[in-house]
Amino acid sequence: MTKQQLIQEIRAKRSFLCIGLDVDLEKIPEHLLQTEDPIFEFNKSIIDATHDLAVAYKPNTAFYEAYGLKGWKSLSRTIDYLNNNHPEIFTIADAKRGDIGNTSTRYAKAFFEDMNFDSVTVAPYMGSDSVEPFLAFKDKFTILLALTSNKGGLDFQVLTDEKGSTLYEHVLQVSSTWQNSQQLMYVVGATRPEYFKKIRKIVPDHFLLVPGVGAQGGDLVSVCDFGLNSDIGLLVNSSRGIIYASKGEDFAQRAREKALELQKEMEIILEKRSL
Amino acid sequence: MTKQQLIQEIRAKRSFLCIGLDVDLEKIPEHLLQTEDPIFEFNKSIIDATHDLAVAYKPNTAFYEAYGLKGWKSLSRTIDYLNNNHPEIFTIADAKRGDIGNTSTRYAKAFFEDMNFDSVTVAPYMGSDSVEPFLAFKDKFTILLALTSNKGGLDFQVLTDEKGSTLYEHVLQVSSTWQNSQQLMYVVGATRPEYFKKIRKIVPDHFLLVPGVGAQGGDLVSVCDFGLNSDIGLLVNSSRGIIYASKGEDFAQRAREKALELQKEMEIILEKRSL
Repeated sequence: MTKQQLIQEIRAKRSFLCIGLDVDLEKIPEHLLQTEDPIFEFNKSIIDATHDLAVAYKPNTAFYEAYGLKGWKSLSRTIDYLNNNHPEIFTIADAKRGDIGNTSTRYAKAFFEDMNFDSVTVAPYMGSDSVEPFLAFKDKFTILLALTSNKGGLDFQVLTDEKGSTLYEHVLQVSSTWQNSQQLMYVVGATRPEYFKKIRKIVPDHFLLVPGVGAQGGDLVSVCDFGLNSDIGLLVNSSRGIIYASKGEDFAQRAREKALELQKEMEIILEKRSL
Repeated sequence: MTKQQLIQEIRAKRSFLCIGLDVDLEKIPEHLLQTEDPIFEFNKSIIDATHDLAVAYKPNTAFYEAYGLKGWKSLSRTIDYLNNNHPEIFTIADAKRGDIGNTSTRYAKAFFEDMNFDSVTVAPYMGSDSVEPFLAFKDKFTILLALTSNKGGLDFQVLTDEKGSTLYEHVLQVSSTWQNSQQLMYVVGATRPEYFKKIRKIVPDHFLLVPGVGAQGGDLVSVCDFGLNSDIGLLVNSSRGIIYASKGEDFAQRAREKALELQKEMEIILEKRSL
């Protein structure tokens, strides 16, 4: 998918909502546990109920890996379902991978070719030659961790150099010089709205993937105040707040209601800013 | 496995060699491609030929993920084979994972419980609550990226703060204060021997996993000069240099010869230092 196609989809749906498919067998409705592939059945129902309200889905691969081969099969079926039925949806493998050159190419192939995701999240610690192999794939996006929403995010990411620049600012600056850097997006946690202004100065045009709205306490309006750009430029993710709205047979309908609430908020924000 | 068991094994074998099982179907002998599971057959032959010379095996998960479900099955069979036949061997899932709390627990379960690896490599970027979930598993080790051997390793890892400390030094210092930090090891590239002295000042007792000897240009003697401690404290990895020594039917025998060369070098170094 191209960036223009993503922007078009956001404008058409009046939504920059990403739904996190972090499926935990202990949290899904019991009646699904009787099916052959409960994780896929759950995802399919969530996607069917929300695909007109969201522009992106983001399975976190850890939740699938934890179930071994079965889990990988469920992930594979989920991405196939999305690609076959909703090719207009932007798909994110939230895998936080990263390794040296050749090895990163392997990961890139796994997610971009074998599973045909539109994008994958990548950790920046190992630098240019761990990320550029991902950027070499045309019309695919690499979403680099910049400033994460968790408490430990402050352990190293705000480390400040002699000139007053923090590590996450370096990550934004340096990565902008890498080959095919126009195919980068960045993860910036919604719990840190005070940083968005600084971030937008360094990367005014890139999309930001923003987790942490809802369950983790991030606030949508603050995020938009500083994060939106003329292309909208945000994908705001909600996982638990949507997919676990109910554990009953009405789970998909309740997930839709939660997604609709967020989409409506987004529509109002976009309208106010004539976007 | 406990640290004492690992040290005992190193002393018994006079070897701190780790063999990287980074299996690429394009590089393995052609006659194996006819088998049902070429990756596993290759690994099994390499393990059978070298297990008395190495104390650890390290499959890099990217190489397996790149082959989708089949690849995961090969990885799963490989770790089962090691655990069933060579329980004295230290196993490393070179996965470079890391995510927020709950999610890291999922990864930890996947590698420590589902597959029963002794250790997993983890990226430090997301800080304490992304790593501590791994450290919560008893008799399992978390191998944190500190200073990697690739060119891009210098992009961020040597970023220097106001007081002259680099990012990788912060990672060593800060992580030493985390819960169960005695279960940490660190990745330090063999291509950076000049840094080992500094590193040993901060983490004198922890094991260091050292990739980059051989194919990447690192030198074993320099690494040992500054890296060895009284418990030996090093696991030196070689992947391509051993496993791809030959593409013929003699591949396992040739791999053994290459492993033996390194083991002999290690034995001499240990002897010289009365370790």
